[in-house]
Amino acid sequence: MLSGYNRIGNTESGEGSSTLEVFSTIGQKNLPEKFFIATREEMEGAISKAEKAFAVYKDMPSAEKARFLDAIAEEILALGDELIERAMLESGLPESRLRSERGRTTGQLNLFAELLREGSWVEAVIDTGKPERKPLPQADLRKMLVPLGPVAIFGASNFPFAFSTAGGDTASALAAGNPVIVKAHESHLGTNELVASAIIRAAEKTGMPDGVFSFLVGRGPITGLQLVKHPSIKAIGFTGSYTAGMAIYRAAVNDRKVPIPVFAEMSSINPVLILPSKLEKESEALSSQLVASITLGAGQFCTNPGLIFLISDKFSDRFLKSLTQKMAESSPAVMLNESVCRNYYRTRQATAHQKGVIKLWKGEDLQAEYKASSTLLQVDARDFIVNPELQSEIFGPASLVVKCGNEQELTEALQSLHGQLTATVIGESNEIKKFKNCLDILASKVGRIVFNGVPTGVEVCYAMVHGGPFPATTDARSTSVGADAIKRFTRPICFQDCPPLLIPEALKNENPLKIMRRVNGQFTQLPI
Amino acid sequence: MLSGYNRIGNTESGEGSSTLEVFSTIGQKNLPEKFFIATREEMEGAISKAEKAFAVYKDMPSAEKARFLDAIAEEILALGDELIERAMLESGLPESRLRSERGRTTGQLNLFAELLREGSWVEAVIDTGKPERKPLPQADLRKMLVPLGPVAIFGASNFPFAFSTAGGDTASALAAGNPVIVKAHESHLGTNELVASAIIRAAEKTGMPDGVFSFLVGRGPITGLQLVKHPSIKAIGFTGSYTAGMAIYRAAVNDRKVPIPVFAEMSSINPVLILPSKLEKESEALSSQLVASITLGAGQFCTNPGLIFLISDKFSDRFLKSLTQKMAESSPAVMLNESVCRNYYRTRQATAHQKGVIKLWKGEDLQAEYKASSTLLQVDARDFIVNPELQSEIFGPASLVVKCGNEQELTEALQSLHGQLTATVIGESNEIKKFKNCLDILASKVGRIVFNGVPTGVEVCYAMVHGGPFPATTDARSTSVGADAIKRFTRPICFQDCPPLLIPEALKNENPLKIMRRVNGQFTQLPI
Repeated sequence: MLSGYNRIGNTESGEGSSTLEVFSTIGQKNLPEKFFIATREEMEGAISKAEKAFAVYKDMPSAEKARFLDAIAEEILALGDELIERAMLESGLPESRLRSERGRTTGQLNLFAELLREGSWVEAVIDTGKPERKPLPQADLRKMLVPLGPVAIFGASNFPFAFSTAGGDTASALAAGNPVIVKAHESHLGTNELVASAIIRAAEKTGMPDGVFSFLVGRGPITGLQLVKHPSIKAIGFTGSYTAGMAIYRAAVNDRKVPIPVFAEMSSINPVLILPSKLEKESEALSSQLVASITLGAGQFCTNPGLIFLISDKFSDRFLKSLTQKMAESSPAVMLNESVCRNYYRTRQATAHQKGVIKLWKGEDLQAEYKASSTLLQVDARDFIVNPELQSEIFGPASLVVKCGNEQELTEALQSLHGQLTATVIGESNEIKKFKNCLDILASKVGRIVFNGVPTGVEVCYAMVHGGPFPATTDARSTSVGADAIKRFTRPICFQDCPPLLIPEALKNENPLKIMRRVNGQFTQLPI
Repeated sequence: MLSGYNRIGNTESGEGSSTLEVFSTIGQKNLPEKFFIATREEMEGAISKAEKAFAVYKDMPSAEKARFLDAIAEEILALGDELIERAMLESGLPESRLRSERGRTTGQLNLFAELLREGSWVEAVIDTGKPERKPLPQADLRKMLVPLGPVAIFGASNFPFAFSTAGGDTASALAAGNPVIVKAHESHLGTNELVASAIIRAAEKTGMPDGVFSFLVGRGPITGLQLVKHPSIKAIGFTGSYTAGMAIYRAAVNDRKVPIPVFAEMSSINPVLILPSKLEKESEALSSQLVASITLGAGQFCTNPGLIFLISDKFSDRFLKSLTQKMAESSPAVMLNESVCRNYYRTRQATAHQKGVIKLWKGEDLQAEYKASSTLLQVDARDFIVNPELQSEIFGPASLVVKCGNEQELTEALQSLHGQLTATVIGESNEIKKFKNCLDILASKVGRIVFNGVPTGVEVCYAMVHGGPFPATTDARSTSVGADAIKRFTRPICFQDCPPLLIPEALKNENPLKIMRRVNGQFTQLPI
């Protein structure tokens, strides 16, 4: 049963007089539950508990934090069908997708638990002192990554599990040793409450300090920005729109005495470059693969392929005919919420009316049913290059084909691209090598470059980079998916001539954690 | 012979009609040379060359980049006494200090060359594909750090070699594969030109592309900010005042279409906490050590110990008497430039007039000779806690003693501290352990914590963190000194299912560079 309350640490709280309800696009009505918007005092309570929890939590052994993360995964699974059903109602996403997203979410928690048990993520570096050095002795210097303090996390509507309450940012922030305060996403408040209750149960079962996790219900521009500006919040994780992301980023820099890091993943249209030989030889397979990627989950993926670059010839024409036909055959699907649906039709309309844009396929407007019909537009490279409006994200099952007259036009069109999460290159190895210049340009714009595949599908593993140059994110040095996401919510600290009694475990001569360290420049797991 | 020209890549250029001269505080007059302020066209020329150079430079083998860095060090040494003499005239710093700073600067270049030859700094991570995985195959994912593009660097006046033209930021940016454009520091334009000429000679001798290095003469608020706002500049390194640093940081976030990372090291007053037992047992040695650190280089170090915390008792009184006497005995020294000197007297005056501040020692005003006389002020913790003005940096040979009535006051005083580069704790191991709470608070505020030493003296090595929470820097995740500084000017990129033909060396199965990599979660130097 949903209470509609906030969680101030382990305590349920609904002091406010205002509430929010969730509109279900699949049910085409408001769901019955009311969720209490957190008051300023409730926010202060959550932050104050987080600060106290931090003092204890940061120093808890990694093994205990790992147990906490694994327990969260267990408690999420223990919610069973209730969670899946609520998420279906709130997100309009189908059951199979949500079951697999739940698996990804628990897998993510387990990965960070594994990372903590292994321990090397702290990047221990040691330079042993040289007291005999002339003219001055060299101090003993030891450094490692440490957590920052309370982190505020804003989840995304399109991944109600994997990028929300117990998503990647929460998992990595907790793993690194930071308490987390989630601003619950307004379009899946029930899902949020269920997942949050699982986190709290896990925290209680594994003996975590009260305040290691809280969540607040509220509106982004009010509750959200209050959180961002609060002096005790030390970093922000955000996944969502460009507008909201930039509001947070600017507030974190301009409206605080002490600016804090903001990891905002915002907008990406994920260019796909198809080279001539593949258009000639694999036209049908390619068009099927691309349409599936464009329309997957009603196109509501940050890695949705929104731009297709090709050099115009008879094979490209054949390919586009096939692509158009398959787009027309794709089924409309219910979107996440009203605003996502409204924006989809608004932005596809805006793009369709730009200079030189040709409509290859435009499904009928199904806004009344909150469904997205697919869209395939086309424009000449010359028009694309001069018009940045054509790089506005159409969040949904839409793509814009950029037809290039020749390699020179292609190069210029790629050069005009904004920062992206991904780029995809489809071609034979030798052919891609011939287009090395294009590959270099694409690589300079993205966090991940996919060869002969599609950009959708983001593996949770060690080598993933789910991030990229602005405006894809506010910080291209980071990833929101994969093991290295743990580094977001950390900073290095160096201990100079620290008495052995006081040296943190990770930096002790004996290397009791048996982690990989850089000692006097050499990588080693051996003791000193 | 100094030409007064800018360097647009390998070309000397002085198209402008305005010039700057350098005032020598030691000579008490303007030096005769005129330096041409770069025109907008010259800046565009440098940036355009840097962009072209980047396309070539980024892909050059590490060994060649390492040769370039070593060659810069050689060419700097080859400048011989001319460089030292010019720097003495321009900075007022003594010869021995400048010789040792030159050694540090060349050592820094050699360290990055070593790092490049070793190669593991790219943080290669590989997850090999699992084509047989069900329900979906796992892609092959490989990631590494790559350079960003042209970097603009603003040096500091207080380290005309080590934090300027060929300083840490230039060395790390070049090492990572980025072309560098230096905005020459206005107070050592001749030193800058000599060092820049050494860099250019090294670039030519080692076959680096024209444009890998340029420098521009100009004023910070004009030329400097134009550089910061230029769309082709991808990151900023800065060391200097809070005001200038924040102007750059805000411009990089607010006045650009695409915000860029800014690594600004700004202001730090480096608290020193002396615990009771040491005050009792080592009063004389401690006061000597501290006075030496406070007055070193006329106190013009970012790690100068500007705050001394102690708990009031009869031993602290004895210590302060000794400290005061030794401060009074310290010799005034010439400061770096007019503005540093003016600011020193202005800020010490401002602090001395704050509520509750007692003057233990205040040397006479020697502004007419551009000399700093030392200053020792004292304030009660209760006054310190409520007055953030007392945390304004007095850049020069000054320190403020914060007398705490008891441990509770000490804790609160430490808690009120802003972010710092360093904190120092002086005490016996068991005693420090008893003050664990204070140690934790200090650790949360700083990038480096020094035990039983002084904060001045920043070792160039692998484990150094010369950085810290705001306002010490704009990005506590980074260091400006030591091997990890190379990470500032990089970001990760991931290659998904990359054809073997196109995989970068660092990520090839064979591990031809023999670097340490994380392969399927395990650290290894073995091939796959």
